[in-house]
Amino acid sequence: MPELRKDPIVGRWVIMSTERGKRPSDFTGHHHARKGAPCAFCFGMEAQTPPEVLSYREPGTRVNEPGWRVRVVPNKYPALRIEGGPGRRGDGLYDLMNGIGAHEVVIDSPDHDRGMADLEPRQIEEILWACRDRVLDLSRDERFRYVLVFKNHGPEAGASLEHPHSQLIALPIVPLKVQQELRGASDYYLLKERCIFCDVIDQEIREPNRVVFENEGFIVACPFAARFPFELWIIPKRHGSHFEHAQEAEYRALAQALKAGLSTLKLALDDPPFNYIIHSAPVREAPSHHYHWHLEITPALTKVAGFEVGTGFYINPVPPESSAAALRQMLGESVAAQAKVA
Amino acid sequence: MPELRKDPIVGRWVIMSTERGKRPSDFTGHHHARKGAPCAFCFGMEAQTPPEVLSYREPGTRVNEPGWRVRVVPNKYPALRIEGGPGRRGDGLYDLMNGIGAHEVVIDSPDHDRGMADLEPRQIEEILWACRDRVLDLSRDERFRYVLVFKNHGPEAGASLEHPHSQLIALPIVPLKVQQELRGASDYYLLKERCIFCDVIDQEIREPNRVVFENEGFIVACPFAARFPFELWIIPKRHGSHFEHAQEAEYRALAQALKAGLSTLKLALDDPPFNYIIHSAPVREAPSHHYHWHLEITPALTKVAGFEVGTGFYINPVPPESSAAALRQMLGESVAAQAKVA
Repeated sequence: MPELRKDPIVGRWVIMSTERGKRPSDFTGHHHARKGAPCAFCFGMEAQTPPEVLSYREPGTRVNEPGWRVRVVPNKYPALRIEGGPGRRGDGLYDLMNGIGAHEVVIDSPDHDRGMADLEPRQIEEILWACRDRVLDLSRDERFRYVLVFKNHGPEAGASLEHPHSQLIALPIVPLKVQQELRGASDYYLLKERCIFCDVIDQEIREPNRVVFENEGFIVACPFAARFPFELWIIPKRHGSHFEHAQEAEYRALAQALKAGLSTLKLALDDPPFNYIIHSAPVREAPSHHYHWHLEITPALTKVAGFEVGTGFYINPVPPESSAAALRQMLGESVAAQAKVA
Repeated sequence: MPELRKDPIVGRWVIMSTERGKRPSDFTGHHHARKGAPCAFCFGMEAQTPPEVLSYREPGTRVNEPGWRVRVVPNKYPALRIEGGPGRRGDGLYDLMNGIGAHEVVIDSPDHDRGMADLEPRQIEEILWACRDRVLDLSRDERFRYVLVFKNHGPEAGASLEHPHSQLIALPIVPLKVQQELRGASDYYLLKERCIFCDVIDQEIREPNRVVFENEGFIVACPFAARFPFELWIIPKRHGSHFEHAQEAEYRALAQALKAGLSTLKLALDDPPFNYIIHSAPVREAPSHHYHWHLEITPALTKVAGFEVGTGFYINPVPPESSAAALRQMLGESVAAQAKVA
């Protein structure tokens, strides 16, 4: 059973995979994913994954067989185990608990070679619906307090399999950074009686030099204090604390915004490795006025050195105004090119 | 002038290097350090760096000429500028200030090919003294509130030059993670009236399955909630809040502990990329009972994905007890081998 251990000074929980039992020699070579090996996420390989927990599929096709458009399966090598109780306990001054949780993989589409940037908006929308459905289902489990929804794209961003996929991790604790973001938003609300994200949207739309794209539901913008070159936040215009409680039209608008953001990053930066994470309120908390869910995309262009990990102090060589200008120009050119073709 | 910008939600400051002006095309290729180019940190190349601010050198040699053992110079491409006032100001709901600070490079030794793990303890001690002297000097500048002392070893850990070196960054703010660590230690002290790091040392020495090395002044141990495989903390046994106020014998003992830790990591993991950061109380604060300075070494063996950066939530595939056992065994073998040679 993996363990969750808490750093006694800052309160950060770490998943300790005590079972994998890696040795020093596992880290000394460079391990590459096997190229050319058959892919467990492609059509016809459904038996290679654990049985699916959700799929959207063509009429007349059967579970764990081809014909799906989006498919969600438990991770074959989960960081956490679904069985058991929290088992909170102490060891001297240390705190730990059982590594319970869920770790699922959302296979974005049957197409091995098309990343999310290349999918049609309606396909992206289905991926978002699948994530929403899984968050709602996992949040029925009273042991879980937070569900992380994220994507690693490219090996430099931590993707260990090539076939495009997203991930969900359900946790019995709320991660420290999420707690800090919730507290920051709550402090602002106490001071101003307004949501800080709503205020950010207002200011960004009024002076749009960091905005890359906007539709009826979302803005796509480089944040004022961006940690990374070409970092992008996608924020819903309508206030809401939980991703899984968004309105139907919002998933459609988010799919369009994600398509705009990711395809522009791909064009501008030659298919860069990236991560995105959906920031949302804890699943067991009631809807709140002060927190505002959103999605953060961080291209992995610069090496994140231990300096930055250790201090939380980032040096960004490209101001967000320059990133946004370059991406806006690219988006304009790409729309113009599409218009020419059509 | 670079800017320091504050994230309005969590309060994290980011250095925005507005001058470097990188474009998207700067990120699409893979840039390698030029091999074979003459090294500005080697003997005889002193004119290639800004004039030295400190050096320990052989009698009869002159500043900015060969003959030094450790040499400190301003970074040629500093992240922050030394001139100017803080210029704190607002932009709507955002906060920013001038990117003032100091960014210095400590050239560890004239030897281009020997990393810190290969240096003699007395050479490491001189590097530590140079860092201490620079922290004391920089802390006389009333604009600076924190001085980060750190090392990036290997390109994967962010080192852009091969010649072994350490770095100092003096900042007009206290980084968010440092604030969080100070607050965590202070909360524990309020509750227990004891220093949490002193308690950690007690527990680790009593049940030493995470301890790798110990001398009269320090323990070298894998922390209970290690984020990374083979992460090592070096903690002084005597309570003290500031690295720069350690006793003379402590720098000698720390040099020996660093030598043990780094040379064991090098042997066990085939010269891995790593970072270390000295965690110390803010330079302008009085010595405190609740904070305890120490040094954290994080080998860069696993890719730090955006997932971990974004959530602060780490998955460690090697429990610290296994890391410590492997390193202790390696240390024993290396001592045995040295005894055999002698």
